[in-house]
Amino acid sequence: MRFVSYVQDGAPALGAHLPGGVVRLADLGPGWPGRLDDLIGEGGERLAEAWTAASVSNAPRTPMGELDLLTPVVSPGKVLCLGLNYVDHADEGGFEKPDYPVLFMRGRTSLVAHGKPMIRPRCSERLDYEAELAVIIGTTARHLTPGEALSCVAGYAVFDDGSVRDYQRKTHQWTMGKNFDATGGFGPEFVSADELPPGAAGLRIQSRLNGQVMQDANTSDMVFSVVDTLCYLTEVMTLEPGDIIAMGTPAGVGHARRPPVWMKAGDVCEIEIEGIGVLRNPIADEVV
Amino acid sequence: MRFVSYVQDGAPALGAHLPGGVVRLADLGPGWPGRLDDLIGEGGERLAEAWTAASVSNAPRTPMGELDLLTPVVSPGKVLCLGLNYVDHADEGGFEKPDYPVLFMRGRTSLVAHGKPMIRPRCSERLDYEAELAVIIGTTARHLTPGEALSCVAGYAVFDDGSVRDYQRKTHQWTMGKNFDATGGFGPEFVSADELPPGAAGLRIQSRLNGQVMQDANTSDMVFSVVDTLCYLTEVMTLEPGDIIAMGTPAGVGHARRPPVWMKAGDVCEIEIEGIGVLRNPIADEVV
Repeated sequence: MRFVSYVQDGAPALGAHLPGGVVRLADLGPGWPGRLDDLIGEGGERLAEAWTAASVSNAPRTPMGELDLLTPVVSPGKVLCLGLNYVDHADEGGFEKPDYPVLFMRGRTSLVAHGKPMIRPRCSERLDYEAELAVIIGTTARHLTPGEALSCVAGYAVFDDGSVRDYQRKTHQWTMGKNFDATGGFGPEFVSADELPPGAAGLRIQSRLNGQVMQDANTSDMVFSVVDTLCYLTEVMTLEPGDIIAMGTPAGVGHARRPPVWMKAGDVCEIEIEGIGVLRNPIADEVV
Repeated sequence: MRFVSYVQDGAPALGAHLPGGVVRLADLGPGWPGRLDDLIGEGGERLAEAWTAASVSNAPRTPMGELDLLTPVVSPGKVLCLGLNYVDHADEGGFEKPDYPVLFMRGRTSLVAHGKPMIRPRCSERLDYEAELAVIIGTTARHLTPGEALSCVAGYAVFDDGSVRDYQRKTHQWTMGKNFDATGGFGPEFVSADELPPGAAGLRIQSRLNGQVMQDANTSDMVFSVVDTLCYLTEVMTLEPGDIIAMGTPAGVGHARRPPVWMKAGDVCEIEIEGIGVLRNPIADEVV
């Protein structure tokens, strides 16, 4: 099942992405929410009910390319991000392979939908891409064990953990450089967990800048798998429906290259994960 | 103006804390929201309108001690926290005085209201207190200048940036140790900015554990003032109504003492800020 969040008539809309196009849930009758955040919150079976209702309806099907997309979850409660979660990326940054998940957080103001510009701020030229798998939580979870961990996952999407490197390293805590407005690509759509291998393992993950492959790895190369990560996180905190976990990035980021590669206005960054899709964002300069 | 968030009849309620007690806004007629989050979002003048309407009404006034309190903002979009923002605290932790704000984030699942237990998790004995000033954002803000920065602040509250120290230091990023469920005290109520000196400067700030003074400082001792912090943050990100900034803690935390002091079940932690109030939380062990 694939669901798409977008704007229609000035309000958030949620659609089922069927083979012939996107069916807006609101066109199926009353009672369907306008945000994936809310549909997920109503329980896992509601996703399937919505998908079935859309599949059999005669409602119009709009090509996805015609939609004004939002991030799949519009307003996540928490955006938890792993750092250094691929050995080769830890190594290229001068870090040891971690023995415990390295965690930071992004605010929702840092997120940007598929097709919308990632913004290079006025104060820095060091905007970098990071190809990542995004896990979307479906049910409230605490103290998960490995055997049950994946049951809290509603689905997956593609993430670009866009980073302003000089601000990331201004202090030992990375939060500032990870929270510039509209630097975290998230999309293009929600793909339910049952469409992918358990834990979204074994999927090719790639970033391309202006068509050139910059990162090329496999989600099975993670230091901490999705199952591991869910167990570590829920020892500490409650995960809630709509929370996002960005699973870290493999080697090949711009700041580790010699010379370094920074994204600039007019560039196009694509992140592709096998079986999920392509997240594409043009780069634009901040205008104030 | 003082506003209190609490639960009544199973739903969030918002009240104006007048001299004779708390008047629930819903008792003033339709159109008043049940959450401070929403009242703030309606604009600064709505706070004053609600305060005035409550002041002149004959609605019942309930003693604050009888209410089942929530955190002042129930569901903040971002909880931004400064580290090492008092010179003596940076020093006691073995850090240099920062020349740029050290920032991490907390999720809303880590917050706990006045009077509710702060939870010492099963996995650690190292639960520590941190007395802090909480800034509550009232209007959307980006690229603030020093002269205008405070105009985005709706008000203030007291914060206890409860930290699980061994998890905070498991990696170089502090996020895990700052995000255990129900470890971040936030309350007891919202105090509007006009009740306090500009930037809430010059206020005594104290923590007490079982009545013993553990931290005793002044908000003017911060490395980065509220104005400074707002300017640094909004160079990077948009602040939104209901966002929270926890301004860091002075010296005297438990982990820097010899021997260290950890909070345990049955303890009571109080944080007091002059002119704002006392945030009190008993400590309880996690029960699963």
